Amino acid sequence: MRDFYPEDARIQQYIFETWARTAESFGFERYDASILEPSALYKAKGAENEEMVNEQTYTFTDRGDREVTLRPEMTPTIARMVAAKQRELSLPLRWYSIPNLFRYERQQKGRLREHWQLNCDIFGSDHITSDIEIIALANQTLINFGLSSDQFVISINDRALMERMYKAIGLNQNQIIDLTRLNDRRNKISFTDYKTQLNKITNDGTLDEEIILLLDKSDEQTDVIIGLEELGITNVTFDKSLARGFDYYTGTIFEAFALDDEGKPTGRSLLGGGRYDDLTKLFNQESVSGIGFGMGDVTLKDLLVEKDLIPKSVKQTGTDLIIIPMSAEQNLEAQKIALELRTCQLSVMTDLSTRKVAKKFNDATKNGAKYAIVLGKSEIETGKLTLKNLHNDDETTGYIEQIKLKLK
Amino acid sequence: MRDFYPEDARIQQYIFETWARTAESFGFERYDASILEPSALYKAKGAENEEMVNEQTYTFTDRGDREVTLRPEMTPTIARMVAAKQRELSLPLRWYSIPNLFRYERQQKGRLREHWQLNCDIFGSDHITSDIEIIALANQTLINFGLSSDQFVISINDRALMERMYKAIGLNQNQIIDLTRLNDRRNKISFTDYKTQLNKITNDGTLDEEIILLLDKSDEQTDVIIGLEELGITNVTFDKSLARGFDYYTGTIFEAFALDDEGKPTGRSLLGGGRYDDLTKLFNQESVSGIGFGMGDVTLKDLLVEKDLIPKSVKQTGTDLIIIPMSAEQNLEAQKIALELRTCQLSVMTDLSTRKVAKKFNDATKNGAKYAIVLGKSEIETGKLTLKNLHNDDETTGYIEQIKLKLK
Repeated sequence: MRDFYPEDARIQQYIFETWARTAESFGFERYDASILEPSALYKAKGAENEEMVNEQTYTFTDRGDREVTLRPEMTPTIARMVAAKQRELSLPLRWYSIPNLFRYERQQKGRLREHWQLNCDIFGSDHITSDIEIIALANQTLINFGLSSDQFVISINDRALMERMYKAIGLNQNQIIDLTRLNDRRNKISFTDYKTQLNKITNDGTLDEEIILLLDKSDEQTDVIIGLEELGITNVTFDKSLARGFDYYTGTIFEAFALDDEGKPTGRSLLGGGRYDDLTKLFNQESVSGIGFGMGDVTLKDLLVEKDLIPKSVKQTGTDLIIIPMSAEQNLEAQKIALELRTCQLSVMTDLSTRKVAKKFNDATKNGAKYAIVLGKSEIETGKLTLKNLHNDDETTGYIEQIKLKLK
Repeated sequence: MRDFYPEDARIQQYIFETWARTAESFGFERYDASILEPSALYKAKGAENEEMVNEQTYTFTDRGDREVTLRPEMTPTIARMVAAKQRELSLPLRWYSIPNLFRYERQQKGRLREHWQLNCDIFGSDHITSDIEIIALANQTLINFGLSSDQFVISINDRALMERMYKAIGLNQNQIIDLTRLNDRRNKISFTDYKTQLNKITNDGTLDEEIILLLDKSDEQTDVIIGLEELGITNVTFDKSLARGFDYYTGTIFEAFALDDEGKPTGRSLLGGGRYDDLTKLFNQESVSGIGFGMGDVTLKDLLVEKDLIPKSVKQTGTDLIIIPMSAEQNLEAQKIALELRTCQLSVMTDLSTRKVAKKFNDATKNGAKYAIVLGKSEIETGKLTLKNLHNDDETTGYIEQIKLKLK
């Protein structure tokens, strides 16, 4: 579990705000839901999912004897919400959310991982322009954090295309599902292990070479990639070995990876998503096609710190002006002046600590405050205040109305 | 459990942003923590709390055999966080958070209530100016939502003062605790029930009259109220019958109530808080005094809706410009133009629906968009676009660079 002390909470808020601003610039509307969902929502997709729910989620029985789960992903929730109001909603929808998600780590059983994720979906459009738009949005999000297009690559694949290819070389439906899952773990296991697993799927092994050749040959130019290039987004690559974990994807799938200094993709996945066609069907509604992606906060934050892309302003407290009473006797007057100066749309804090005035000045400067006002007996008697600019040591002395004019 | 469809999520975000903006204008820093806490955190405060944890919270055992609780309030969490870093943190702290909290409703067992709350605390200052500042902040929050000071009242009491008064008329410590709890429910039960309960506490009933007289006589002028009046905050009243539920309060306690049209307090509590002295002691740290309040989203939202104080802009989607392709053939070009126009700091959406152009125009206007551009074959051939201002029907025709100039 993570605690967010102010210095971490500021970075977290900066990430959330950049996510929200970017999604809204594409006309996406925010939605939200409770973190608790009926467990049935995740089990509906089949037996394999039941295993996932039991092993990888936080599931328990509430007092009403209902089995509930702390949501591990947001897509089932949006599908549930869309299905519930399908007749009223005007399609296509562009919706985004910034949920916290909960998963058990396989490696460390009993350890719960909570993380936040930007989730963006276009629901109700199966036109290829939606695929292009959602990937353009994913790309723009990374750009808006200050990453340049040579620092990450977007890998794209197409589940439908892969299915046709696998069928063409003779694989059956079960083999295709197993192979897709194996490919999803391909970068996490050794090549020897990969070949062993592959051999189990193909049974006699005669297709293994062909499959490996097929996956490694990634020279297709798909319409999605051509479209993205039209929009000036060229850091994309078609990668037939890209698999993505969820079974519900039916068409375009994509994932973005950070590049190392030599321009090679690292294993660090920054975001991932794809097209799904049948999710609302689970709720006995007519099928609505959608495409979306999720982008986690943990890998992103690590990358931003590594590349020194957290803005300086985010590292500071954000207080503009500190009022420093000489002694506790001036505390109430300090509050009064603070209240007055806040009408200038400033963040104004009174320093109520019992430290020395010099120490208070140092702290104000260190925390990034721009102004300070020291308040002693004489300031209160005369009504004249001295506003000190901590950035350039300028001083302005005057009555409160003059100080307000200076601050505006 | 609540789902937030976009129209509700916008109001929710408006509330969160107003909360955050106001707290930050007072120099408060944001913090956050996981919604899951060890149950021991809430049981630590005594047997009465153990009952509260078992009956009113969402508590269960995780796979590591630890008992965990979905947090019902934020104060224990901030006390835990402060205690963990007490030596590093520079006191006093001004911290705020906007957590979601979970409670079972007593009336409807098995029904879980999730709500959000603004939590503001000043930790490490026992000076009376902190009491005044935190109440001034609570007041300013309501003002910043557009409420006027004749629409709510802040009731103030003092636990320490009440304890002295109760002792003076002969009550012992247990009777004081029971009476405080009874007073907390005073507005929720009938006067007859109140008197019956009171009689049980005082045993022989000789003190009942005296207690009722004492509670109803609320003419004290405390330093907190005098200080608030100095700051121009006069919609405050001293109310000896104010009790507040939590046992941990030790000094000033306060609560704000909406007023009805005749200026009488309604039962609708908008926020509540108080001073606590010993919370960090529970974590074997030296005692740090703090004062804070919590303000829930549900009652607030209902009041804002009733008083028609939700700004019009919050009711609309926030998209500035809609690009309407005449047919799907222009979809990609629409994306390209949208990407270009977003550099003007605008929210730009392409309408990918298959509805008629006239319908798309109507929807754009209804959703509050300011501009629309219709994109057909001729626009793409000539490169000349027509920007229509939907608010005043003005039109501007030109190449994209000219449109961008117009939009900037």
